[in-house]
Amino acid sequence: MSVTTPQGFRAAGVAAGIKASGNPDLALVVNDGPQHAAAGVFTRNKVKAAPVLWSEQVLTGGRLRAVVLNSGGANACTGPEGFQTTHATAEKAAELLGCGAVDVAVCSTGLIGAQLPRDTVLAGVSAAYDALAADAAAGLAAATAIMTTDTVAKEAAHRDPAGWSVGGLTKGAGMIAPSMATMLSVLTTDAVVDAPALDAALRAAVRVSFDRLDIDGSMSTNDTVILLASGASGVVPDPDAFTAAVTEVCRDLARQMQADAEGVSKRITVHVTGAATEDDAVTVARTVARDSLVKTALFGSDPNWGRVAAAVGYSDAAVDPARLDVTINGVLLCRGAVVAGDRNDVDLKGEDVLVEIALGLGDGTADILTTDLSHAYVEENSAYSS
Amino acid sequence: MSVTTPQGFRAAGVAAGIKASGNPDLALVVNDGPQHAAAGVFTRNKVKAAPVLWSEQVLTGGRLRAVVLNSGGANACTGPEGFQTTHATAEKAAELLGCGAVDVAVCSTGLIGAQLPRDTVLAGVSAAYDALAADAAAGLAAATAIMTTDTVAKEAAHRDPAGWSVGGLTKGAGMIAPSMATMLSVLTTDAVVDAPALDAALRAAVRVSFDRLDIDGSMSTNDTVILLASGASGVVPDPDAFTAAVTEVCRDLARQMQADAEGVSKRITVHVTGAATEDDAVTVARTVARDSLVKTALFGSDPNWGRVAAAVGYSDAAVDPARLDVTINGVLLCRGAVVAGDRNDVDLKGEDVLVEIALGLGDGTADILTTDLSHAYVEENSAYSS
Repeated sequence: MSVTTPQGFRAAGVAAGIKASGNPDLALVVNDGPQHAAAGVFTRNKVKAAPVLWSEQVLTGGRLRAVVLNSGGANACTGPEGFQTTHATAEKAAELLGCGAVDVAVCSTGLIGAQLPRDTVLAGVSAAYDALAADAAAGLAAATAIMTTDTVAKEAAHRDPAGWSVGGLTKGAGMIAPSMATMLSVLTTDAVVDAPALDAALRAAVRVSFDRLDIDGSMSTNDTVILLASGASGVVPDPDAFTAAVTEVCRDLARQMQADAEGVSKRITVHVTGAATEDDAVTVARTVARDSLVKTALFGSDPNWGRVAAAVGYSDAAVDPARLDVTINGVLLCRGAVVAGDRNDVDLKGEDVLVEIALGLGDGTADILTTDLSHAYVEENSAYSS
Repeated sequence: MSVTTPQGFRAAGVAAGIKASGNPDLALVVNDGPQHAAAGVFTRNKVKAAPVLWSEQVLTGGRLRAVVLNSGGANACTGPEGFQTTHATAEKAAELLGCGAVDVAVCSTGLIGAQLPRDTVLAGVSAAYDALAADAAAGLAAATAIMTTDTVAKEAAHRDPAGWSVGGLTKGAGMIAPSMATMLSVLTTDAVVDAPALDAALRAAVRVSFDRLDIDGSMSTNDTVILLASGASGVVPDPDAFTAAVTEVCRDLARQMQADAEGVSKRITVHVTGAATEDDAVTVARTVARDSLVKTALFGSDPNWGRVAAAVGYSDAAVDPARLDVTINGVLLCRGAVVAGDRNDVDLKGEDVLVEIALGLGDGTADILTTDLSHAYVEENSAYSS
């Protein structure tokens, strides 16, 4: 159930000493081939971290041998010095692996605006190289080394009956929004897939998984999802089955991120149907998912559908109040924007909350996964610079 | 310093019994003329409360005799029954004042999705009518009766040397956003101004005052600002001076709302300069002002400029990282999106925080007023249905 589930991959995670805590902070994922196709999706933030600038550039070739990931520092807003650190990191890994620096992507996460300790990172790359292994423990070690405020390592995998598989790891617990989380994710497959097909499958998967997770509306400078294909299974997959498998792994990872989000006490799914378009459905779901008053009400186990209706009403989507229904955990509370059911009938004691919004305008539908806004969220994000 | 500062106005605030607490909950502001010009600005939320639907309609005539305001219930998402309550409220006031129901606007605030107790409201209108007075105490009583989670009544006034004045009251402490707050505000003037000129002055004032206050990004179903002109001073004001005076009063009231926002421990001004356009400046300032990670960091007195830079980067405005400077409370922390100053030099012990963002692209500038995201905000919005 990790990046080492598919054949042809090794991984490692080590404590390089970037984090003052001494916790693991550097991971390496290596594709031993025979193929080295790769694709990536990156943050749309206009302020991009050095590793994003680097990895976007090297991925234009559609080929990667390895990915180096570090926690303990985002290497964002660090200027030329920060970029040189990223470059040196890729060169170090390339030297050890006997490839070019352009075959190595780099991902970083942590505090924005601080330089990484370059020598510490480079020594960590060497240590990770020495620790590379193809077993599940190695995959878990890599997933563990990229954790920041995550409380658990996050891995997933899909084994296809046709003889290929997809594996993945991710991290991310806050600053999770519009176009992906503050998240780093590496996905692997041993299916035989060329770079253009990998890219198409990855974009299709991200659009309905990581892009539909919105914890706090904040989009990071560092978001990166990379998919590596080794071809080691020797099997050319059915394209639809392959996209479905990548999507399944991404959704599994996204749900793990939702469950481990900063300060979460409720896992909320906002399910919109009947929108004029799918884009409108996403817009409505995202507006409700981001509304601080909705999120605090659900933290307080208050089925305050009026706040949901208000958020739907100020979204940029087409909305006709006369057709707006709101249902919380199965109880229809609002029909045609008018009070319908009894809020006392809503059971919000559990951790999972389903907010259903029916717009009655068309066929557009979308889910956004989010969490409540709790004291713990405020505590975690005010007490520590992260 | 209230709606009764200008000549020709009486006001009252009473405890009608709408609120279970027994606190004051119904206000009446009456324009005794000789003129009755009026203008209004309303929420852009597509889900509009019954009093908004009513008041928008009656204001198309550009004339009002009175405004009835209640707290204790928003009368939103209440269907035909709710609309009939609003209509009956206006008719009751009209009957007492000897005018038509179309000369009476109605404003409501409180929980969405519950019917108001109609007979209680109508009896409250009578009691308020009996209590009408033209002194400052009456203005304060009206401002007090519309408070919800506000902790203080909010009033302001401007006396012009030319012999006319502008007064105002407002309420609003949460659900304050894009296009005005969950706020109700009544402004009065004894200047001689016709309805079209009133409308122009009010829209110009609101655009740079209430519209630039963004506490939590949530736009209400009930936002209403109404400006009444009695002409009782007999003075026709200079149009620019009049607009400036209305703007000054609205800004004063907006600052009072910021200072009394739910759970506020920091009053934050986000000041953007150098944007390509004024719209872009507003977009950047609003994106930063709404970012939960920026708001929690400032609650924790953490000058986390990296979160500011990230929020600027994911805004929809034109941004060139190479020209992006961020200054917090006078300390330049980030120049060209690269770490510059020492965050330890930033003093965040006080209640006021100034976040300055220079984009280096043009002449667009804007301020957005907001607050931090605190435990008290979460507590207030999770523990009570409001």
